[in-house]
Order: sequence, then structure tokens, then C-alpha cells
Amino acid sequence: MRGGTPTLAEIAREAGVSTPTVSKVLNGRADVAPATRARVEELLQRHGYRRRAAGPPSRLFDLVFHELESAWAMEVIRGVENVAREEKLHVVLSESAGALSPGQSWVDGVLARRPCGVVLVLSDLDTVQRTQLASREIPFVVLDPAGDPADGVPAVGTNNWLGGVTATRHLIDLGHVRIGLIGGPSRMLCSRARLDGYRAALETAGLRFDPRLVREGDFHFEAGYSAGRDLLSLATPPTAVFAGNDLQALGLYEAARELGLRVPADLSVVGFDDLPLARWVGPPLTTIRQPLVAMAETAARLALSLGRGETPATTRVDLATSLVIRHSTAALNPPV
Amino acid sequence: MRGGTPTLAEIAREAGVSTPTVSKVLNGRADVAPATRARVEELLQRHGYRRRAAGPPSRLFDLVFHELESAWAMEVIRGVENVAREEKLHVVLSESAGALSPGQSWVDGVLARRPCGVVLVLSDLDTVQRTQLASREIPFVVLDPAGDPADGVPAVGTNNWLGGVTATRHLIDLGHVRIGLIGGPSRMLCSRARLDGYRAALETAGLRFDPRLVREGDFHFEAGYSAGRDLLSLATPPTAVFAGNDLQALGLYEAARELGLRVPADLSVVGFDDLPLARWVGPPLTTIRQPLVAMAETAARLALSLGRGETPATTRVDLATSLVIRHSTAALNPPV
Repeated sequence: MRGGTPTLAEIAREAGVSTPTVSKVLNGRADVAPATRARVEELLQRHGYRRRAAGPPSRLFDLVFHELESAWAMEVIRGVENVAREEKLHVVLSESAGALSPGQSWVDGVLARRPCGVVLVLSDLDTVQRTQLASREIPFVVLDPAGDPADGVPAVGTNNWLGGVTATRHLIDLGHVRIGLIGGPSRMLCSRARLDGYRAALETAGLRFDPRLVREGDFHFEAGYSAGRDLLSLATPPTAVFAGNDLQALGLYEAARELGLRVPADLSVVGFDDLPLARWVGPPLTTIRQPLVAMAETAARLALSLGRGETPATTRVDLATSLVIRHSTAALNPPV
Repeated sequence: MRGGTPTLAEIAREAGVSTPTVSKVLNGRADVAPATRARVEELLQRHGYRRRAAGPPSRLFDLVFHELESAWAMEVIRGVENVAREEKLHVVLSESAGALSPGQSWVDGVLARRPCGVVLVLSDLDTVQRTQLASREIPFVVLDPAGDPADGVPAVGTNNWLGGVTATRHLIDLGHVRIGLIGGPSRMLCSRARLDGYRAALETAGLRFDPRLVREGDFHFEAGYSAGRDLLSLATPPTAVFAGNDLQALGLYEAARELGLRVPADLSVVGFDDLPLARWVGPPLTTIRQPLVAMAETAARLALSLGRGETPATTRVDLATSLVIRHSTAALNPPV
């Protein structure tokens, strides 16, 4: 074999199969024996094979979710659709249905339809899948609000740590001292980042970090409710709580209502995400805005840019969070 | 030309073009002059041309929205994804971006990728587009929560009138007499159906329909808020309001809060839709459940069934609404 990228015929000869068989593997066709497919994939990977552009570019763009149930999935879809509309692309939507990596049937589908880009939400590809996409020149970007980027994978996220600092500082500035936290699941890096931001804000303001005021949730309403009941039933309960995300904030609202506490007169609450519903709840929720639509747009544009062979200045982009003050926070012991 | 369906060659001869050109038009390819395309389309339509199945069936399924902003879009997406996962299909998502019919670029894309089915949400196809899809054997179903089906078009909806009756009866059963309504936009048939149901429930219970207690909204939060301020500021305000949908119910909550009225002690509220957020607001919202996930599943299955050449018992399916009682409704003047 010559130096440089081998041709299909050379790969075929080395694998002991016909050129059309190699072509079928490249195109994700199902009618290839698994052993043959594995041998061809191995050779494609070993030689760093890169497919040359063939035919007109596809008008499809793939968007893959770990789970569509997520309250902010709609925001992400809208962002990707905005870019698709501008670029006259059609978005193929998939859900990995609980698995953290999309399955091989998704990869086969992608290889067959050759989208001009892929945005993966939370899900991540394993090394083999990454190599498969790379060898077909299918660019992909991870949209990563969980703040857990794989090494060297292009990704768009947000600064969860700074968001945690901002939420907590807002409460400190209002005079609160006993500030609780309902965090996300500890296995997610974004939960850890928000917790560290909360702690940093407390300690740089000269306040003690008190683990008794911290609970672990799972980013759902019910966790906010039960952690909220728990925190508000302490002998000396917090006067303010950073709820970790908007849904947990609503669960905390419910717990406060049941205990006869008024938000914000008796309890200040800050969320995280700024979902549309944050504006509609009573009282409207003060929260840390994560620019999900803009993040999704940025991820889609980054994938298309990579697909055009451009070299972006960076392939790891964090968009800034911002504090949105509504009516769920108030000064401690406000003057009457 | 013989009787029965003409061949591509016959269409080509009559149009004075080559067979590959007819084939390009069938496949939605862009490289055909507009005049030629129009002539070929006209002949395809006149002869009732039906494409024979060619090649393996596509693994794509199309889902088209009028607007993705709609609060229940996510429910619909989840329903279609459920069916797609079972059937190992990939969902192509489009938004007609304000236009009530998807544009020609969408139709061209569909003709090129030949999905095994299409679900259209609220958007409707014009007659030409319908004929184009029919001639390529691409089955489509309208998902129609607005209750406005085009004649003869397969559609899945819900019984909005009965939902309006159920919402209002629930309030009557609680002893309310002055019951307000914040309706949807009058141009949407579902708004009219819910209003008629409201009126039917009142009149069959021997209560007078009072137009002063009725306001027109647009199904968004702000309309519920301003219509709510208006109704609650009447000299004799209603003690209960059927808010037309969940978002308007939340706007009404906000109006009540501002006026110092407690839900449900001073005001009972019923929504419509049962979005996930109905469980999370304070107090949790009593509402009419529209089974959006099941409706979307039914629409997707109906399209696939039509695509397999089956003849369903009916191509217009309405799924039932149901009353979900939570904490926003209470008996009038409850005993202490």
C-alpha cells in the first residue's frame, strides 16, 4: 500500500473482499456479514481512511438526545431548527432512550444518510463510533449543559460554576446568611460545578459552608419538593435556597406552600435554566439563565463549519449564564 | 395511452421530455426547469400516477409543525418518537415557520427522501401538495388538536366540545353559578368547540349563559392574565373560570394573585391540555387532559398503516379527553 490515504480498492484487497463490500460498510448498509464489517472497519480505522465528498451534500442534520423528557429539550430543538431553517436543512431527531451512547442502529442510519452535521445532547459517542463518523467526514458536536466534555470532542456548554456563584451572591447581596442548596445528582459534573460555585460565593463573602443546608436532588420536581420539606423543617431553616434548577425550585415552592411559608416574604428561591415556565409560575422565578437556544444554535453552526473543512478558533465553547431577577427573591427581613 | 396507470415513459412522451426528467420530478430533484416540472406534475396528477415501490423502504418519518413554540410540541414529539423507536425509524422534524402550509422546499425534500409516513401538526397541505405526496405513495396524517380537519384527510384529534362540557360541569357540580370562560382565538375551531361545550353545560344545568363572563384569548399566558384581570374586576366577578387552556390558566393565577384572591378559596380555575407543568404550579392545576402523546402515537401508526396499503376502519380518529382533578378547584363557599 502507498503512503497517504488508501483507496477503497486497496482496503478491499487487504480485507480480502470486493470493493462494493467496502462501499456498503462505508454507507452503513445492513447486508454485510458482521465479521466482514468488523474487518473492514478495523482497516478503515487503522489507515485513517477519509471518504472523499461524493455526490451533492445531504440536506439532513442529525440531533440526538439522551432523553426527550428533559424539560429543556424543546429549547434545544428550537435552536437547531433555527439554524436548519437558515441553511435549508432538515433535522433528523433521535433519542437514545436511556442509553448514554446512541446505539449501533443509529450509527448505521447516520452512515447511510450522511447528514451534513450531528449535534449530540448529553449522549456521547464511544471511540469506535467516533472513528466511524470521522472516516465518513460526518462532523459532530456535543451540546453539553451537563459540563462533562470528552477529551478533544467539539462541544458547546455553559459555565455552571459561575452560574452557581451568581445565584448565591444574589442571595448574599439581599442579606441572607443561612442559604440552602438543593443540588443535582452528584454523578453529573454540572451539579458539582454549581455546588462548588455556591460554596465559593459563601466563603469569599466570609460565610461558613454548612453541609446541613445542602441536599442532593435529581433535577426533577419531586426531588425539590422532598429536599425542600426536609430543609424547611430544620430547627433553624434556611431563609433562602438555591434550588439547583427550575424544576427543583417549583418543588420547593410546593413544599413552602404546604408549610405555610410565603415566597419571597418568608423564603427566597433561585432556580437555574430559565425555562419558559419560570415566567409563568407564582411568583415568577428568579433564576440563572442558561442560553439553551443560543447554545444549540452555536453547536449546529460549529458542526456545519467543521463539515465545510473550516478550522474554528476553538472547538470547546462555553456561553455565559446570566441572572434573571423576578419575584421569588427579596431582602432578608425587609423593612415594612 | 392505455387504460390504467401510465408508465413513466408514457408520461415522458406526452410531456415531450425524457424519462429521466420525469424521474427527477418524482424524486423532488431541483435540477428541472420550473415550466417542465409544472407540465410533468400536471400530467402525473391528471393520470392519477402512482409510483410503484422502488428499492428498500426508507427508514425516515416526517413530523411537521406549524410552530415549535407551542407548549405541547414536546408531547407530540415524544409520541412520534415512541412509535419511531418501536419501528426503528428516524424522525425528520420541520417547522413551517408561521406559514400554515409547509413550503415547496419541504415538499421537495419529502419527495427526495421518501419517508414512510408524515404527521402534520396543525399545518395543512394544499391540494397540489396533497396530490404530489399521493402520487409518490407517501402517506400523511394531520394531528389536529385544533379540531379543524380538511375534508377526507386522515386526521387524529380530540373531542374539544366534550372537554368544554366536562370542565364546566365540574365547576357546576362544585356549586358555582357565576362561571367565566377565557376562550381561545375565535378563528380556531377548537376554541369554538370548547365555548359551545361550556355553554351547553351551563344551559343543560339550567344556568344562564352570560356573554359578559366570556373573554377571547389566544392560548398564551399574557391573554389569560389580561382577560383574568378584566373578569376579576367586574362588579360581580365570577367565582370560577374555565381558562380555555393551561397557559391561560397560569395567566389567570397571576391576575388573581395580584388582586389578592386565593385559588381555590376565592376562585376556582380549570385548564385544558394537562401539560407537564400543570402538576408543578401552585396550586397544582385541575384541567382537561388532552392525551397528546397517545394522539401523536395514533397519528404516526395510522400513517404507517396507510403506507403498508392497509385500509383502517376510519381515517378520522378522536381520542377522549378526561378531567384531572388537582387543587385549583373547590366547592363554592366551603363550610369551615
